[in-house]
Amino acid sequence: MGGTIRIAVLGASGYTGADLVRLAAGHSNIEIAALTANTHAGKSMASVFPHLSVLPLPDLTTWESVDWNGVDAVFCGLPHGTTQKITASVLGTNPGIKVIDMSADFRLRDPQVYAEWYGHSHFAPELQDEAVYGLTESYRDQIRTARLVACPGCYPTAVLTALLPIVSEGLVDSSDIVIDAKSGVSGAGRGLKQNTLFCEAGEGLSPYAVASHRHAPEIEQELSRAAGTELLINFTPHLIPMSRGELCTSYLRLSAGANPAMLRDALKARYADETFIKVVDEDVIPQTQNVRGSNFVQIGVFADRIAGRAIVVSALDNLVKGSAGQALQNMNLLFGLDESTGLKQLPLFP
Amino acid sequence: MGGTIRIAVLGASGYTGADLVRLAAGHSNIEIAALTANTHAGKSMASVFPHLSVLPLPDLTTWESVDWNGVDAVFCGLPHGTTQKITASVLGTNPGIKVIDMSADFRLRDPQVYAEWYGHSHFAPELQDEAVYGLTESYRDQIRTARLVACPGCYPTAVLTALLPIVSEGLVDSSDIVIDAKSGVSGAGRGLKQNTLFCEAGEGLSPYAVASHRHAPEIEQELSRAAGTELLINFTPHLIPMSRGELCTSYLRLSAGANPAMLRDALKARYADETFIKVVDEDVIPQTQNVRGSNFVQIGVFADRIAGRAIVVSALDNLVKGSAGQALQNMNLLFGLDESTGLKQLPLFP
Amino acid sequence: MGGTIRIAVLGASGYTGADLVRLAAGHSNIEIAALTANTHAGKSMASVFPHLSVLPLPDLTTWESVDWNGVDAVFCGLPHGTTQKITASVLGTNPGIKVIDMSADFRLRDPQVYAEWYGHSHFAPELQDEAVYGLTESYRDQIRTARLVACPGCYPTAVLTALLPIVSEGLVDSSDIVIDAKSGVSGAGRGLKQNTLFCEAGEGLSPYAVASHRHAPEIEQELSRAAGTELLINFTPHLIPMSRGELCTSYLRLSAGANPAMLRDALKARYADETFIKVVDEDVIPQTQNVRGSNFVQIGVFADRIAGRAIVVSALDNLVKGSAGQALQNMNLLFGLDESTGLKQLPLFP
Amino acid sequence: MGGTIRIAVLGASGYTGADLVRLAAGHSNIEIAALTANTHAGKSMASVFPHLSVLPLPDLTTWESVDWNGVDAVFCGLPHGTTQKITASVLGTNPGIKVIDMSADFRLRDPQVYAEWYGHSHFAPELQDEAVYGLTESYRDQIRTARLVACPGCYPTAVLTALLPIVSEGLVDSSDIVIDAKSGVSGAGRGLKQNTLFCEAGEGLSPYAVASHRHAPEIEQELSRAAGTELLINFTPHLIPMSRGELCTSYLRLSAGANPAMLRDALKARYADETFIKVVDEDVIPQTQNVRGSNFVQIGVFADRIAGRAIVVSALDNLVKGSAGQALQNMNLLFGLDESTGLKQLPLFP
Repeated sequence: MGGTIRIAVLGASGYTGADLVRLAAGHSNIEIAALTANTHAGKSMASVFPHLSVLPLPDLTTWESVDWNGVDAVFCGLPHGTTQKITASVLGTNPGIKVIDMSADFRLRDPQVYAEWYGHSHFAPELQDEAVYGLTESYRDQIRTARLVACPGCYPTAVLTALLPIVSEGLVDSSDIVIDAKSGVSGAGRGLKQNTLFCEAGEGLSPYAVASHRHAPEIEQELSRAAGTELLINFTPHLIPMSRGELCTSYLRLSAGANPAMLRDALKARYADETFIKVVDEDVIPQTQNVRGSNFVQIGVFADRIAGRAIVVSALDNLVKGSAGQALQNMNLLFGLDESTGLKQLPLFP
Repeated sequence: MGGTIRIAVLGASGYTGADLVRLAAGHSNIEIAALTANTHAGKSMASVFPHLSVLPLPDLTTWESVDWNGVDAVFCGLPHGTTQKITASVLGTNPGIKVIDMSADFRLRDPQVYAEWYGHSHFAPELQDEAVYGLTESYRDQIRTARLVACPGCYPTAVLTALLPIVSEGLVDSSDIVIDAKSGVSGAGRGLKQNTLFCEAGEGLSPYAVASHRHAPEIEQELSRAAGTELLINFTPHLIPMSRGELCTSYLRLSAGANPAMLRDALKARYADETFIKVVDEDVIPQTQNVRGSNFVQIGVFADRIAGRAIVVSALDNLVKGSAGQALQNMNLLFGLDESTGLKQLPLFP
Repeated sequence: MGGTIRIAVLGASGYTGADLVRLAAGHSNIEIAALTANTHAGKSMASVFPHLSVLPLPDLTTWESVDWNGVDAVFCGLPHGTTQKITASVLGTNPGIKVIDMSADFRLRDPQVYAEWYGHSHFAPELQDEAVYGLTESYRDQIRTARLVACPGCYPTAVLTALLPIVSEGLVDSSDIVIDAKSGVSGAGRGLKQNTLFCEAGEGLSPYAVASHRHAPEIEQELSRAAGTELLINFTPHLIPMSRGELCTSYLRLSAGANPAMLRDALKARYADETFIKVVDEDVIPQTQNVRGSNFVQIGVFADRIAGRAIVVSALDNLVKGSAGQALQNMNLLFGLDESTGLKQLPLFP
Repeated sequence: MGGTIRIAVLGASGYTGADLVRLAAGHSNIEIAALTANTHAGKSMASVFPHLSVLPLPDLTTWESVDWNGVDAVFCGLPHGTTQKITASVLGTNPGIKVIDMSADFRLRDPQVYAEWYGHSHFAPELQDEAVYGLTESYRDQIRTARLVACPGCYPTAVLTALLPIVSEGLVDSSDIVIDAKSGVSGAGRGLKQNTLFCEAGEGLSPYAVASHRHAPEIEQELSRAAGTELLINFTPHLIPMSRGELCTSYLRLSAGANPAMLRDALKARYADETFIKVVDEDVIPQTQNVRGSNFVQIGVFADRIAGRAIVVSALDNLVKGSAGQALQNMNLLFGLDESTGLKQLPLFP
């Protein structure tokens, strides 16, 4: 296949929306049919994101005014709850549209868990059933035939790519997983908050949402499935003074007979044929600088000095593989394209 | 033309070399035949620049061991003086090679001026005569048929794209040009210097090389040609706590009858058909964030509150349009390709 | 004198207010009687500024609820217009209070000029007449006996300390002064604005308020007085990715017979006995890193390569000598204390 | 006591040395008798650290040329191994000198452990026996009468202040302590290294010395003593793009019957009378911004969502409480001064 895919991006005034536009502009098969941002409707995209002013782009509009019959795929980067509300309407107008959600609205299979963490009942439980979790490397086949893809959060992508193969092979004690996560400030979005001002976030560092971050249940859902048993994780994110990038350091207790090299080997075997997941050798240390602006994940395994323990480090760009890039990767699957189309951009360093 | 161009990159362990490799990897016609870095010969490029580890690349070697008959174009990112020394040897082995120099070795037409600013006599004055100054938008026709292209410095590119059309049309007093320049730290290179350590350059700002920066004579050479008279400029660079990006604020005295709108119109007319030079409207302020990682230049004109004066602001990425990107743009010309091949990467923001 | 001075800080939830509290806490004669922030009234200062949680401080309150009879000096860090409105009321309750305004409300002697730049008529023109401009080194004697001190803006402090001695001695052409100013992000305050988010301001740089910044008329007012003639300046500020610090690069045309060394000598002579103004030798380059967190100003003079021109660079911390520090310096004068009391804190580097 | 203490600072050209000078200059009893930096001998301190140019300071000299009879206390900030070599010589000349070592030379009581981690035999095992570990709040009484104080590393100070009271009271399983540590770049010193260049460390993050950092055995030494049994810890440091600051996130398994509130209460009780250790309430999150430039430590306790686990976060300034500040605190003890003399400087924010 090689026809034109007409896309709409809902929530195009956020960082994720902008990064999707950046990537889509380099995709040979995409035509951007609509960009929405209800609070900025009527403005040019260039006025909201001057770095995109070199592109010919449609003006921002409301999602209600999009002509859905002229759209093949819709990327949703909306506040939580919103996509649940509008998807039925969109699909009612054009049932052939592929919905690629970058929000949390369809990630949690259990609507009870959703309600617990997001503070309201799920607005579209009937759609939840057909949603496929969009961790591309794990759900590739299901994504190909899906209509609604729920792309993972940035932290879950970093953690799950690193831990799923290890947990599913029983190499570690799944009841003792400690994840110390670090994210650049763009993960908090473009909304105005005091703690993301330059003077507040710069030259300093702090944990946030300690043991209460909404990405924890999402990670647990997938790790539990891999482990074959319900598990809880210790997950603590930290805000780091950089714009992009995310790094998760996972502290693991090895199963009897396992050792760090076996973990590395399992990861290398699992990802040998993957384009975007790179398992590094023993002497290489993952760092966010190595993946900035790209769709790559870098994973490293280290022996702990305590016998029977290992440390796994994974790094990605939260706006790319952690959001817009993986969404585009999934779109490629949905339309039968080579999975890496539009995603070959290399990391930007320095 | 669409054949494969085999390139060598000399000085591939520097930031400019790495950015050239990044861009070249996305160029449909390029094959990287050799990467040299004499102090790192034998190492893999991935060990020197881990962000490029996803590419299949030749190991680093010495420039002396390159097989020049297997090379169509050589990009030189070497310390000053070095390219002067080796170019004759390279061309002696393979006279058909196109030499694209990113250093200062062939930028100054007058070897006396070179000697004055670089502290040694020019080592290849006979080659200087055939060198074409690689400011693409100004020397496009000459570059197409050149064998040796001397790409401008980052500051000259930012200043000259903004001022050449204005000066050549006589819109400003060419004897009263004050340029306050600001650059990210990557402009200082990857060498180990105390003032480019994170703790020294971070959270602070200072001028450097006040009224004595080596890019001043280069700017003067080209502005003098445009003005039709020898001129001197006031040029003061500042080191800014960011990795990439360069912004020059030029303070100009208008010629009788001129006004800021006329400057803007002259720039817009001059660059109407250019892919990479963007003159913004009155209400838009250029910023380096808008061009980061890309080959674009953004130029804005502002009225001063003092009658008869104007302010011109130009921003670019010092490693791309300021170095590797413009070098690649020139290579495209040398080989008859579309000038923007491999250079369509959009700015990365945030 | 050495008694206790009871102070109130109005607008204590802003960066300037917080820095005043930081400095006041180290001042041997100060007792903090009241902290106001009308939108945060009732909160503890520690909840608004956790770095001050180690101090015993009164809770935030409204300015209306302050007991003015228990206050000797009031520092005002309020939005413009507000101090004009409340000062008469404060002084009506307690005519002995010293008012030290850190806003722009009383800086411009001509209420017409104030109205032109701030968009509303001056609310207290009768008080304007008694206001003394609080550039300590220039108005020391008048400040000592004042009741209302209008502390200069951060940019005016940096520019005026550097240029007043030069202009007043006629060493430069006062009709040709170009000032390129650079400021850290804290200069924009703690209010929520998109352009001061970490992801927007970080890793990039841009001019703002080009030729229209409200500090320009203030600089012109004082330079005109020094020059003995009305003058206009070219003043263009830039936003730099750092929290604190300000550096102004002034491009000057020398008067006949003058040279850069004469400028440096004039500055050195003028400031020989000053504690906080440091004129550096020819081989030293001012940088904001050298004054961060302190009340010092660093000034350097450089010859331009164009004969008859010079470059003067001045650096300070915008929140200290540019605001709270100078306000405290003025309070010391008002109460007959040693001028440097509470201000001996050294720069923090790195 | 209140007499003058004449100090020498060895290794004054490093960040730790400079910060000690900054603090010492504000100390009412200190006279700086000598500053040494063998590679910079003969230079002024101002030329090496321009931010200290406002102080009258002796020029840098070699340690061999110091007149030890004119010195009461010597602060050593030298490369490891060096203080071991010179201390006997210094004490031989003047046995009354108090030696306050900021290096790792005397921190490990077991010379075997030292040799294992530092790659050479201990050069002064006979002095090791009299060295007192300089974690002020834990060894206050011993420090008062010591002659040789071995100040802890920055990480050990952050970890031990947070964990010692918890471990010594048996509230957690001492065999399952995971510490994820994050440090600003100044922790790596002022030496020229590629990974601490602005362009390498900026806008990115990576672990380093994974499970092999030299501060691990130091932490284990003290925690083992508190636990009453030999223990090993999991300790993984990360390099963060900021200059100052350190934050350690410790993941703990609670002992039977213990809960997070009990940990917080234990810490609050332990530090109720301490000036510099601040245990925050449940709703406050420690961050390095709250302690920057100061001698304070901020500690918080959080419940994990996994029952039976807790998270302890501690933050400090690596150059102050993590090095020079604690050294000065120890000097105050050695000379019978109030422990907080010269250390009351508040955090600098923003």
